[in-house]
Amino acid sequence: MPDDEFFMRRALNLAARARGQTSPNPMVGAVLVKNGIIIAEGYHHHAGEDHAERIVLKKAGRSAQNAALYINLEPCCHWGRTPPCTDIILESGVRRVVAAIRDPFPGVRGRGFRILRDAGIEVTEGVLKDEARRLNEVFFTFHEKNRPFVMLKWAMSLDGRTSTDSGQSRWISSEASRRMAHRMRSWYDGIVAGAGTVLMDNPQLTVRLSGYKRRQPACIILDTTFRTPPDAALFKAERRVIIAGGAVRDAAIRKRSLRLEAQGAEIIHLPTRGGLVDIPSLMQKLYNLCFQSLFVEGGRHVAGSFFKAEMVDKLGVFLSSRIIGGLKPASPLLFKGPLSIKDCPNFTIDKIKRSGTDFYLEAYPV
Amino acid sequence: MPDDEFFMRRALNLAARARGQTSPNPMVGAVLVKNGIIIAEGYHHHAGEDHAERIVLKKAGRSAQNAALYINLEPCCHWGRTPPCTDIILESGVRRVVAAIRDPFPGVRGRGFRILRDAGIEVTEGVLKDEARRLNEVFFTFHEKNRPFVMLKWAMSLDGRTSTDSGQSRWISSEASRRMAHRMRSWYDGIVAGAGTVLMDNPQLTVRLSGYKRRQPACIILDTTFRTPPDAALFKAERRVIIAGGAVRDAAIRKRSLRLEAQGAEIIHLPTRGGLVDIPSLMQKLYNLCFQSLFVEGGRHVAGSFFKAEMVDKLGVFLSSRIIGGLKPASPLLFKGPLSIKDCPNFTIDKIKRSGTDFYLEAYPV
Repeated sequence: MPDDEFFMRRALNLAARARGQTSPNPMVGAVLVKNGIIIAEGYHHHAGEDHAERIVLKKAGRSAQNAALYINLEPCCHWGRTPPCTDIILESGVRRVVAAIRDPFPGVRGRGFRILRDAGIEVTEGVLKDEARRLNEVFFTFHEKNRPFVMLKWAMSLDGRTSTDSGQSRWISSEASRRMAHRMRSWYDGIVAGAGTVLMDNPQLTVRLSGYKRRQPACIILDTTFRTPPDAALFKAERRVIIAGGAVRDAAIRKRSLRLEAQGAEIIHLPTRGGLVDIPSLMQKLYNLCFQSLFVEGGRHVAGSFFKAEMVDKLGVFLSSRIIGGLKPASPLLFKGPLSIKDCPNFTIDKIKRSGTDFYLEAYPV
Repeated sequence: MPDDEFFMRRALNLAARARGQTSPNPMVGAVLVKNGIIIAEGYHHHAGEDHAERIVLKKAGRSAQNAALYINLEPCCHWGRTPPCTDIILESGVRRVVAAIRDPFPGVRGRGFRILRDAGIEVTEGVLKDEARRLNEVFFTFHEKNRPFVMLKWAMSLDGRTSTDSGQSRWISSEASRRMAHRMRSWYDGIVAGAGTVLMDNPQLTVRLSGYKRRQPACIILDTTFRTPPDAALFKAERRVIIAGGAVRDAAIRKRSLRLEAQGAEIIHLPTRGGLVDIPSLMQKLYNLCFQSLFVEGGRHVAGSFFKAEMVDKLGVFLSSRIIGGLKPASPLLFKGPLSIKDCPNFTIDKIKRSGTDFYLEAYPV
């Protein structure tokens, strides 16, 4: 029904207001409709706080009776940090529940719908399902693939380069694009970069936006031999820092890793492969640490190794209007690629928009 | 006046119908308006045939009296292959002439307007001037810079590469993009490629579109030591082939160049620079041969050398949705670039549109 889509779109838009703030929970918005009119609406703000369903049903109180509840995800039916939403829905007197998609969380997966149906509530599933899945792509990937969602982001020149022959890359993209990249950082649980990038650019890898006071994503540095300088700029911010390196092969490595630990970094030791941290091992570790999503910023070896491991869920490319030129390899991804074009992985460019003087593209694996 | 823009836009659209067919003449469209109604319209089809002004005034005959004539370029006032348009305008009884922009041709440059004004005709200049200049960018560049207009075109993957590590590049772009590239070829006087591309891909470098029967652009191969094979596919088509190489330094080079001449190629000898044909010398030579425009297709050394010479007027980039990867340099332009980003040449991305699964971008130097 067109009305269902209309109200569901509203729920999706409300949900998206908390982008980056709900992890490990999904973003959920709820709209309560009676006689074609929205009588209450809301969304889940932070993990540990009320779920969207509870927020709107509390707001509506007794007027929720016989209303229709629109939510972009199946309501939970288990005790987490808050009580199950199915309980409060049943108590509210709501007559109909319209949900976009099933919750992939092992404790739910259709059980929420069943409980409601068994209690005589009319349940409609699948309204704006694709949009709902896209909105919570991180949450779905984490629970379906049992690993963090990986967003690979880079900025490249119009001639496909990410640095000059001297290694300079500041700034290829426009100020508007850099601001947008900061906003994007805030949506992910961890920001990933390689030690080479730390040594070359000494980035802070924080969200720096005027007025931004919400959580800072963790910073995860891939650094096989713990070359990250203890006085690196990334230690300045208050947030979690993880340095993922290889085995402690000698005293020098041990000493350097201890010095980084003294700076407050969590040190993890992982298998390496061709001088780089083994990505599947890293992903397993970060899954266990409950990282739902990673924002991988580079350099080109790190980006390439995620690609080689076939663990890239989304690409974000800033295409600058500059021409850099040069003689050295400067492509955004360095990894042993296929020799034949037809074997090269294909993506769907899903979105393209202006970003200052640049263009920003988003792509998904086909 | 808004009406002036309306009719001028019509004239521009008519003019553009002959894209690629008027060289060395510009594209010109004409619209004759009386009492707010178009009473005749037309455009210049081919060099040597009637100019747009003559076409519409012939069509209108006596009804041209007191009408307004809209043209996207100043009317010519000199005898070329056809008589001056100012004469026929004066004879026609037209009361007003609205033109977009002055003709940059040395024999005109405002003289056409002066002749009309001196005869008492009301002349309005500058309506949709930018659009008019853009439409005839080739013609303006040729006459203002005294060299051919250079359009650099490439297709690159989403990770900025133009080939795999084995050198394969067929096909990075979608079928729609390749068709579009053929259409673009038909708009230029010459298609330029390097001997490396000929040896690697053996391209025909012709316009191949179903039903296309119009002129084939010349094919210009940059080949310092005349390595182009005499049985290369580019010799198959009926059109002009120019092989631009270096000096005849030894008997082997002489022999190879004579063999190419025997295949029908025109051989030109030019200074070289770092193993590549010197671009300013090439441009001077092609200017003298009346090439108004070049469509430079690669490879990356050839494209880079035009860039290095700062003789690039427009970029056309097909951005594919594939990721190629690799370890070797594979950027579309190879030349010694600036070491600092702020010294890198900036462009304006003027147009971006979907082309099959790719995106096509057009950019101009800032």
